[in-house]
Amino acid sequence: MSYGIKGELIIIGGAEDKSGSREILRRVSNMIDKERDTMIVSTLASDLGKEIGYDYKNLFHELGVKNIEILDVSSRDQCDDQDLLDMVKKSSLIFFTGGNQLKITSLVGGTPLYEEMRRFHDNGGIFAGTSAGASVMSETMIVRGPDEESPRKNNLSKCPGFGFMQGVMIDQHFAQRGRIGRLLGAIAENPSVLGIGIDEDTAIVVNKKEGYFSVIGSGAVYIIDGRYLTYSSLLEQENEVPLSLFNVKMHVLKSGNCFDLNKKQPLEEERVK
Amino acid sequence: MSYGIKGELIIIGGAEDKSGSREILRRVSNMIDKERDTMIVSTLASDLGKEIGYDYKNLFHELGVKNIEILDVSSRDQCDDQDLLDMVKKSSLIFFTGGNQLKITSLVGGTPLYEEMRRFHDNGGIFAGTSAGASVMSETMIVRGPDEESPRKNNLSKCPGFGFMQGVMIDQHFAQRGRIGRLLGAIAENPSVLGIGIDEDTAIVVNKKEGYFSVIGSGAVYIIDGRYLTYSSLLEQENEVPLSLFNVKMHVLKSGNCFDLNKKQPLEEERVK
Repeated sequence: MSYGIKGELIIIGGAEDKSGSREILRRVSNMIDKERDTMIVSTLASDLGKEIGYDYKNLFHELGVKNIEILDVSSRDQCDDQDLLDMVKKSSLIFFTGGNQLKITSLVGGTPLYEEMRRFHDNGGIFAGTSAGASVMSETMIVRGPDEESPRKNNLSKCPGFGFMQGVMIDQHFAQRGRIGRLLGAIAENPSVLGIGIDEDTAIVVNKKEGYFSVIGSGAVYIIDGRYLTYSSLLEQENEVPLSLFNVKMHVLKSGNCFDLNKKQPLEEERVK
Repeated sequence: MSYGIKGELIIIGGAEDKSGSREILRRVSNMIDKERDTMIVSTLASDLGKEIGYDYKNLFHELGVKNIEILDVSSRDQCDDQDLLDMVKKSSLIFFTGGNQLKITSLVGGTPLYEEMRRFHDNGGIFAGTSAGASVMSETMIVRGPDEESPRKNNLSKCPGFGFMQGVMIDQHFAQRGRIGRLLGAIAENPSVLGIGIDEDTAIVVNKKEGYFSVIGSGAVYIIDGRYLTYSSLLEQENEVPLSLFNVKMHVLKSGNCFDLNKKQPLEEERVK
């Protein structure tokens, strides 16, 4: 299975540390040449774009990044603006803030800006995303669903994401919002897809070329592998009723662990890059 | 954009003619060497696998196909059966019958049988599918949703499909069940994805290598291209309320028409193969 187009990804479970060691944001900033490269902070998901953009711009400046642009649009017809397209073309990393993932896909999906972002990534450009910016990385993304709930049939809203990471479904704020139930329910629908739940202040750094990711940050990453499901009650039952799922394979990874996306196996050691 | 792995596809909107000229099923049968190749009829979507399998086997025999096998499993643990895997490996075309698309993905997704099917298609094996067997071709597939309804926000159930055709969302029984509303609502969520609605007794024959499809059969195929949406009320409104969507591009294609998947443009003439 291919894990999609070329560039690397940093996918963050939301609420990354912004005042302490700032490990995750530091790692994001270290992915580029801080003196020469341009980073874009995309606040497309947020209704508070200006404030959030300003905060992240300051943060990344403090971490040494010299050139930072803000990307925000409020309507689809802005998404063919040549200045915006040129800005994407000239940048090396795009960081998606949190907010509402449906805002990103419904505003930008299918526009010249979206096409430019794909080309950017195809040419090696890096995407980073936190919270809503993490969800949008999946091919089929979770739009919303109940927190702290047992796995139930068909209780999640999903739509096509941007698919920068293929073959997975990503959920964020994972432990903090009690989301294991909803991700299990989603994976039972098509166990070809690997569920990845990411805690707050935790991220996966995806090396697509080599087919693996590493975990960084203070929380855990949960892998839900449904390939070996021997029984699921999904087909026999009504919507909203809790599911039986036998033989789910699950991995919990912490900082320094690695996951082989081709073999679908965790590794204790971080790979040498 | 890549339209996925290599083999060709025939995607049928359900209720294809089985007693008259049988144009669509004849086209399916003509994709292979009827004397030497093996066709598989997969009844994975159906609860009436035996009867449906028997009927299709007879139909394809009448159309001249000599070697036909039935593929049906009722539990995930059957999906690593070596005889089944060998059967897939040796066949040239797999035909998915109708039923419930969630049955296909939740039973087979992530099993060795699924992996074998992907390899089969990567090696040039052809997939055909009708009704539920059509839906499962999308990356994000429609599981269920209201018929004869206006486009509304978030009123459709979706999950990851098998993604044999990428960048599209397929709906079937399109005119007959009044499904334009639900497909419009789905595409508004992420207009990167092209909506394809297929009427009953109608099919698209997808040449992925060349990046186009042709229409065959007695009904129409509807393309919903949301890339040029200038306004959508999706983000401003509650679930279940009808949507405003300005500037949807739509094409209606009939038998003999062709559609260029790279340029996202219809062509009047069938391409020479």
